Amino acid sequence: MPRYALLVEYDGTPFVGWQRQSSGLSVQQVLEEAAASLNGGVPAPTMASGRTDAGVHAAGQVVQISITLDLAPERLREALNFHSRPHPVSILRAARAPDGWSARFSCVGRGYRYRILNRRARPALDAGRVWHVQAALDAEAMHRAAQALLGRHDFSAFRAAACQAKDALRTLDRLDVTRQGDEVVVQTEARSFLHHQVRNMVGTLAQVGLGRRPVEWPQQLLEGRDRTLAGQNAPAEGLTFLFARYREPLDWR
Amino acid sequence: MPRYALLVEYDGTPFVGWQRQSSGLSVQQVLEEAAASLNGGVPAPTMASGRTDAGVHAAGQVVQISITLDLAPERLREALNFHSRPHPVSILRAARAPDGWSARFSCVGRGYRYRILNRRARPALDAGRVWHVQAALDAEAMHRAAQALLGRHDFSAFRAAACQAKDALRTLDRLDVTRQGDEVVVQTEARSFLHHQVRNMVGTLAQVGLGRRPVEWPQQLLEGRDRTLAGQNAPAEGLTFLFARYREPLDWR
Repeated sequence: MPRYALLVEYDGTPFVGWQRQSSGLSVQQVLEEAAASLNGGVPAPTMASGRTDAGVHAAGQVVQISITLDLAPERLREALNFHSRPHPVSILRAARAPDGWSARFSCVGRGYRYRILNRRARPALDAGRVWHVQAALDAEAMHRAAQALLGRHDFSAFRAAACQAKDALRTLDRLDVTRQGDEVVVQTEARSFLHHQVRNMVGTLAQVGLGRRPVEWPQQLLEGRDRTLAGQNAPAEGLTFLFARYREPLDWR
Repeated sequence: MPRYALLVEYDGTPFVGWQRQSSGLSVQQVLEEAAASLNGGVPAPTMASGRTDAGVHAAGQVVQISITLDLAPERLREALNFHSRPHPVSILRAARAPDGWSARFSCVGRGYRYRILNRRARPALDAGRVWHVQAALDAEAMHRAAQALLGRHDFSAFRAAACQAKDALRTLDRLDVTRQGDEVVVQTEARSFLHHQVRNMVGTLAQVGLGRRPVEWPQQLLEGRDRTLAGQNAPAEGLTFLFARYREPLDWR
C-alpha cells in the first residue's frame, strides 16, 4: 500500500489529543476517517512523529498515512482537507514517503513552542493558546536556569508518571526563554522528548521566573531524578508542536 | 460622575460588533453591564475610540466609561474583568480620564492590522483571525499599489454605502503590505477612517495581488470616487483594531 507523509496543523482544543481514544474525538480519528473514501471505505492507518496530549496544538505535525489508492500528493492533500471539515485540522502539505520511512522512527528532531501570557488581564484574543500567569515572570532568570538542562541527561525528574519510554536518557538541544512584550515564549528542540517533559520543564522554569525557587533549582531537580519534586505540569493549551526533522528531505506538495 | 479610560482587547467572533444593537450581544453591552455593580445597579455609559463591525477584533481599543463610584483605576480594571466573564473581552489597563477627554473626539490616530492567510489549506490554528485567500498574492505589488493612497484624499471610493461621515476627506498615514511566511499582513494608520475603509482598501489591494488588476487600479478608483467599483469588502475576521493615539498621555494602570 502506498505510504504518504502529511504536514498537519491543528487546534488541540476540541480533541482528546493526537491518539485515538474511546473517551472522545482525536486528531488521528479525524484524519483516518477523512481518508476512508480513498481507502476502500475503511479508515486508513496513521502514525504521528510525536503524540500530543489533549489541548496541545500543532503547527507542523508530521503524520504517515497508508491508503490503497495511488494518488498524486496534491490530490491526497485536497481530498483530506475536504473530508476533514469542519474540524480544526488542516493538511498543509503531502509527500510520497520514501521506502522504509516512518514519521515516528525516522524523525531525528522535534521542536515545540510554549507561550505564557504574563499580565494581569485574562486572554481574550489568545484564549486556549497560552498559559495565563498573572504574577510577573523574570524571563532572563528562566533562560539562565534552562541552560543547565541542555545536553544528554536522565530526565526522570521531568517525565510523566504514565511515561512509557524504556529509559529517560534524552539529549536536549535547545531551551530558550524570551520575553516578547506581555508574552514569555519557551522554544525547545530535541531528538525526542519524554511524555510531559516540555510541560514539566516549563512549569519548573516558571517557579524560577516567579522568584519562588533559585536559578539552580531545575539543575538540582535534574540531578535528583525524582519526578515528584518538579514544578507543576504547565497547562496543555500553551504548547504547540512546531516541527519534525528528518535526515532525507521529503518532496512536499 | 468620574470618567475613566479603558484599554480593551476582544475577540470579535461572538459579537454583533462594538456597538449595542437589538440583534445580539455587543462588546459595549458586555462592558456596560459588567460595570452596573459600580454604577448603582444600572449599566454605565461608554464610548469607544472607534466602532468595530461584527467579527472585527481589538488588541487595543480605547473606551471611555462613566460610573458613579470613585475608584482607583486598578480596582475598576479588576472589577470589570471579573464581571465581564466569560465573554472574550479583557480590560488590559484603566486610567482616570483627564478633564474634557473623550475616547472618540480626543483621538488623533488609529491603527489597524489586517491578516490574510495565503495558502491552499484552510486555517486550523487561526480560524476566525484571518482572511483565507488560496491563490498566490503578490505582496510587493500590493504594497506599491497601496502607496498611491497615502496622504489627504476624498476616499468615497472606499466607504461603505451606510457610512454616516459628513465628508469623505481623510488623511492616510500608513498602508504597508508585507509577506510573513504564509501570511500577507496589511498595517494601516490614520487620524480616522471611514466606515469599511480598511476592509475596502484590503479587498481592492487583493485584486492587485492576485494579478486581476494593475498596480495603478487603486489610485484610479480613488480618483473616480465611485464606491460601486472597488474590490470586495474584505471579511471582518481578518481585521484587528490595534491602537488609538491621544495627544496627552493617559496614566494607565
